[in-house]
Amino acid sequence: MTQNNRVVRVRIPATTANCGPGFDSLGIACTLYNDVELELTGPDDMVQITVTGDGADSLPLNDRNLVLRSVRTVLDQAGAGHVGIRLALHNNIPLSRGLGSSSAAIVGGLTAANAVVGKRFSQDELLDMATKLEGHPDNVAPALLGGFTVCVMQGERVTCLRLPVPKELKLVVCIPDFRLSTNKARQAIPASVPHPDAVYNVSRTALLVGALASGQLKYLADALDDKLHQPYRAALIPGMADVFAAGKKAGALGVAMSGAGPSLMAYTVENADTVGEAMVQAFSTQEIKSRYLCLDVDYDGARIVDFA
Amino acid sequence: MTQNNRVVRVRIPATTANCGPGFDSLGIACTLYNDVELELTGPDDMVQITVTGDGADSLPLNDRNLVLRSVRTVLDQAGAGHVGIRLALHNNIPLSRGLGSSSAAIVGGLTAANAVVGKRFSQDELLDMATKLEGHPDNVAPALLGGFTVCVMQGERVTCLRLPVPKELKLVVCIPDFRLSTNKARQAIPASVPHPDAVYNVSRTALLVGALASGQLKYLADALDDKLHQPYRAALIPGMADVFAAGKKAGALGVAMSGAGPSLMAYTVENADTVGEAMVQAFSTQEIKSRYLCLDVDYDGARIVDFA
Repeated sequence: MTQNNRVVRVRIPATTANCGPGFDSLGIACTLYNDVELELTGPDDMVQITVTGDGADSLPLNDRNLVLRSVRTVLDQAGAGHVGIRLALHNNIPLSRGLGSSSAAIVGGLTAANAVVGKRFSQDELLDMATKLEGHPDNVAPALLGGFTVCVMQGERVTCLRLPVPKELKLVVCIPDFRLSTNKARQAIPASVPHPDAVYNVSRTALLVGALASGQLKYLADALDDKLHQPYRAALIPGMADVFAAGKKAGALGVAMSGAGPSLMAYTVENADTVGEAMVQAFSTQEIKSRYLCLDVDYDGARIVDFA
Repeated sequence: MTQNNRVVRVRIPATTANCGPGFDSLGIACTLYNDVELELTGPDDMVQITVTGDGADSLPLNDRNLVLRSVRTVLDQAGAGHVGIRLALHNNIPLSRGLGSSSAAIVGGLTAANAVVGKRFSQDELLDMATKLEGHPDNVAPALLGGFTVCVMQGERVTCLRLPVPKELKLVVCIPDFRLSTNKARQAIPASVPHPDAVYNVSRTALLVGALASGQLKYLADALDDKLHQPYRAALIPGMADVFAAGKKAGALGVAMSGAGPSLMAYTVENADTVGEAMVQAFSTQEIKSRYLCLDVDYDGARIVDFA
């Protein structure tokens, strides 16, 4: 069943989740990628992991490695038994910056392993596995499927709808030079919120999904504001409001935290570089170093780029 | 400016707001109509109002009449000065049942008066006036524009996005034989809600808008549940959960309160009569008399049917 000694290489996009009002629900895949190379080396349990790029000096190379855990999830469910595993990881997605690096690791491991077990599992099954490993679906869904995704949890079951996005949408992500753990960012969320704040996000989420699905991007100007997480996390990202304002002043339709931050994502159809430079400049007045990337929407999600 | 002694007749659709998770944000126009006939009778301030159909025995025929107030809002803003007003109202939309009868009155008055002042005001301006008169935009927007609408409030400003809806969507509304005032239903809403409940609605609203906008109606099965208003209002509508279950068992994709209730709206693509009969039957086990109507989506909104 498993195909030993064949080498599969998978490419997985970065993702931006929440997208302003769509907390734990919305995500978009972007044109920034990690690569996962997997080889099953033989009937022992040997593990060999190498990492280049982001996280080369910090990611665990043992059983705690998230790509390895994801590979084993698929192999175990496929009944693959004892196998040696070689993983070569190349990361362009920065760690703990709100760009879905852990989801890319999970989806990369699952997709690569699914290839070597003859695509035993459907995309829906991989999505369920990925959500269980990650704890929430909003990054793993676009990492797996590409494009713009809406996810709903019913208990442990994920329902995911993939929607079209206008090609002219540009994503300008400003990445500050510090990390923010998702756990720490989650602890900032209160247990309850005013009812009007919930309605505030419901209406803007509706407008955001409607605007993207119907290609009427001008509505993004009113659709990206949030009261369910960003106000509570703002203290963790000095200058956030200034960076939002700078991005909009430079021409962005709107700006939102990317996932749990600290990266901030501008949505624009023009002047992408001007927007990025303005955001970097605004961070610098807080003495925070940052860089920006002009990205497009990735429409394909995780893909097998080589299977020799 | 105003065109005295010409008679304008306007037809306005019923509307279903909230649509499950989309509290105060979403609305759909349906093929059930009120008619407003307006004539400016002369340079005095005489008022003559007749009502037939629903509310014939209960609606005020004086300055408190909502159609009259809406007519005057437009005339005043157009600087029409002293005019006599004759209104003949024919209502098919039942009152205080969650089908947007007050929004139909407002939109009917505004649209008729706007015709006699030479369409001085744009649809956006009428929407702002209507929202101010009604207090919230989710019924007035689809009553004015037709179809499926998403509304966002920024202070007093309304942003409204109109979205396409698949033609095969059928709306089966079950109307129980008692009234429920929107005020009373609003008082049942708590001041704050658990954060996970807010996220529950954000994700389902996203799925609902995405499913309707992209024509993937099967997703409605997971998209119509709500934790922001229906659980708190359930006590006001005996048997609500049973009617929901009966509608779904009979083939509906989902069921939700229509507006603030007490009408309950099933969304289906088939077996509309079976769904309606099952809902009526479920209400009857609570000794509540009800009737059902099989409606389509109205795509046109308020329209001038005669201007002689």
